[in-house]
Amino acid sequence: MPKDILNNLKLKDSRTISRSISMVENKEDGYLDLLSTIFPHTGNAYRIGITGPPGSGKSTITDQLVKLILEKKISVAVIAIDPSSPFNGGAILGDRVRFVNDFKNINTFFRSMSTRGSQGGLANSAKLVADIFDASGFDIIIFETVGVGQVEIDVIEAADSVIVTLVPESGDDIQMMKGGLMEIADLFAINKSDRQGADRLYTSLNKALELNNNEFWRTPIVKTVATRGDGIQLLYDQIVNHKEYISNSNKRFEKLDKRYIKTIKFYVSDILTDKFWTEEIDSRLNKELKQDYNKRISPFEMANFLIKK
Amino acid sequence: MPKDILNNLKLKDSRTISRSISMVENKEDGYLDLLSTIFPHTGNAYRIGITGPPGSGKSTITDQLVKLILEKKISVAVIAIDPSSPFNGGAILGDRVRFVNDFKNINTFFRSMSTRGSQGGLANSAKLVADIFDASGFDIIIFETVGVGQVEIDVIEAADSVIVTLVPESGDDIQMMKGGLMEIADLFAINKSDRQGADRLYTSLNKALELNNNEFWRTPIVKTVATRGDGIQLLYDQIVNHKEYISNSNKRFEKLDKRYIKTIKFYVSDILTDKFWTEEIDSRLNKELKQDYNKRISPFEMANFLIKK
Repeated sequence: MPKDILNNLKLKDSRTISRSISMVENKEDGYLDLLSTIFPHTGNAYRIGITGPPGSGKSTITDQLVKLILEKKISVAVIAIDPSSPFNGGAILGDRVRFVNDFKNINTFFRSMSTRGSQGGLANSAKLVADIFDASGFDIIIFETVGVGQVEIDVIEAADSVIVTLVPESGDDIQMMKGGLMEIADLFAINKSDRQGADRLYTSLNKALELNNNEFWRTPIVKTVATRGDGIQLLYDQIVNHKEYISNSNKRFEKLDKRYIKTIKFYVSDILTDKFWTEEIDSRLNKELKQDYNKRISPFEMANFLIKK
Repeated sequence: MPKDILNNLKLKDSRTISRSISMVENKEDGYLDLLSTIFPHTGNAYRIGITGPPGSGKSTITDQLVKLILEKKISVAVIAIDPSSPFNGGAILGDRVRFVNDFKNINTFFRSMSTRGSQGGLANSAKLVADIFDASGFDIIIFETVGVGQVEIDVIEAADSVIVTLVPESGDDIQMMKGGLMEIADLFAINKSDRQGADRLYTSLNKALELNNNEFWRTPIVKTVATRGDGIQLLYDQIVNHKEYISNSNKRFEKLDKRYIKTIKFYVSDILTDKFWTEEIDSRLNKELKQDYNKRISPFEMANFLIKK
C-alpha cells in the first residue's frame, strides 16, 4: 500500500500528494509506514527557506521565484508556515490571494500549514511534508515563514539556503537583527528597494555582515522590487551560487545529518512521553491535584516519583 | 542550605533573590532542592501577563503599573521575557532604558530573561523565577513579553490575568488577532489612544469581543496614554476586578492546576529524554550517520529501534 502511494507520488499525482500530506498532518493510520517507505527517496530536493518580518514581501518574492523557476522547467513546491500565534495568526495566508494550485501543472504545488495546539509538532510536520515533496521528485522546496517564533526557526534551520527579506524601513531596526538573523541568513533580499532608505540599509547591512563572511561565502544582499519582478533573477542566481558553495563544501551533508538527528530526537521524546503517560500515572497525578496547591509534592519531585513508579 | 535561602528570600533580600534566579537559570547544583523547598511557599502571588505587538507600549504600561502598585504599598516583581528570536532579539530590552532595580526598595524587583538555544526551557525557567518571587512574598508578579512565539504564549497562559496591549494602528490588523488573541486576553489596553483611530479600534474590538464575553466577565477595553500615565489607574482597577472574578469562580484554582501539571510534564519529558541519551545510544546513532543519507534507517524506525535497545 505505501509502495503504491510512493509510485503515484513519483508521478507527482496531485491527489496522492494531497492525500499523503493529510495523512501525515493528521497522523492517520499508516502514516509512519508511509514515511518509512518514502525516506530512502528523500534528500534530493534542494530546500530554500524564506523568512522576514511581516510586510517585507516574502510571499511576493516566493511567488516570483516560483514563476522564474517554472520557466526554467524546474519543479518547485511551496510550504507556507502559519504558526497561528496571536500576532501573526492567519496573516501570512489571509492577507492576500495566493496563486492557486494548478493541477494540470505537475511542476508546482502549494501547501499552507497551520496549527494551534501542537506547536511542537508543526516544525516536524513541515519537514515531513517536505519529505513527501522530496520523494515526489520536486527539484526545489521553498519554506515560507514569518520567522518570529521558535517553530519557524526550526523549519528554517533545516533549509539548505536561507533568504531573509527586509524592507528599507527595517533600517532603523537593524540592531533588532543581532539576535540570530545574521547567523541564519545565507542571502539577504532588500525588497521594496525603490523606497527611500534602501541604500542606507544596504550599506549598514553590508558592514554588519563583514564579520560573518568567510573565505568561501560572502552573504549577498540583493535589492528587489518583487511586485515588478525586479531583482528576482539575480536572487535566483545567488541561490544557485549558494547551492554550489554548500555542495562543494561539506555543508550540505552536515545539514542532512542535522535534520536526521533532530527528527530522531523529536520522535524519541515523543514516543517516550507517550508511553509514559498511562492511565495509572494519570490517576496518580489526579490524586495529587486533590490536595491544596502548597501541600502538594513539588513538580520536580512529582516527576521523579512518577518516573520511578 | 535551601532553608537558609528560603529565609533570606522571605526577607526579600535582593542578593539572595538574584543568586537564586541565577541558580535556576543556569541549573546550578542544588537548584532542584531549592525549588522543592520553596514550592510550598508559592501559589500566593498574583500573576499578570502583559503582551502585545512591538511598539504598543508594553514596557511603558508595565513601568506605570509598577509605579502605581508601589504607591499602594503593594510589592511587585517584573519578569521581562526576551526570547531572542531573530526579529525581536534584544529589542524588548535593548531599545530603551528600563527603570533600574533600587536595592533599597525591597518592594520591587526587575528581571529580564533571555536565552538562545534552549527555547523550550525559557518558558519553564520564567515560571520558576516567578516561583522565587512568589516564595519571597511579592504580592504581584508581572510577565512582560512581545508575545509572538510559542514561548511567550506558554508564559502568558500561566498568568492569572492577561492584558493585551494594542495601538490605534493595530486597527487594520484586527483580523490578525483572530488566531488566539481574543481567547488569551482578559483585558485589552488601547495605548497611545490620543492618536487617530483609537475610537474605531475600540468599536471594532468591542464588537469582536461580544462573542467572547460570558455572563460573569466582559473583557474590558481600557484606553491609555501610558507615557502620560493616562488610564493606568483604570487599568489597575480592571485587573482588581478580574482578580475578584477569577477568585470567586473556580478559575484561579484551575490555573494553578494547569501550571502544576504543565511543569510536571515538562520535567517528565526532560528527565526521560536525558536518561535515554546515553553514550551507547549516541554511538549507535553516530554509526548510522556514516551511511549515505538515503541508505539509513528512517528516523521514526531509528527512534523505535533505539528505544527498544
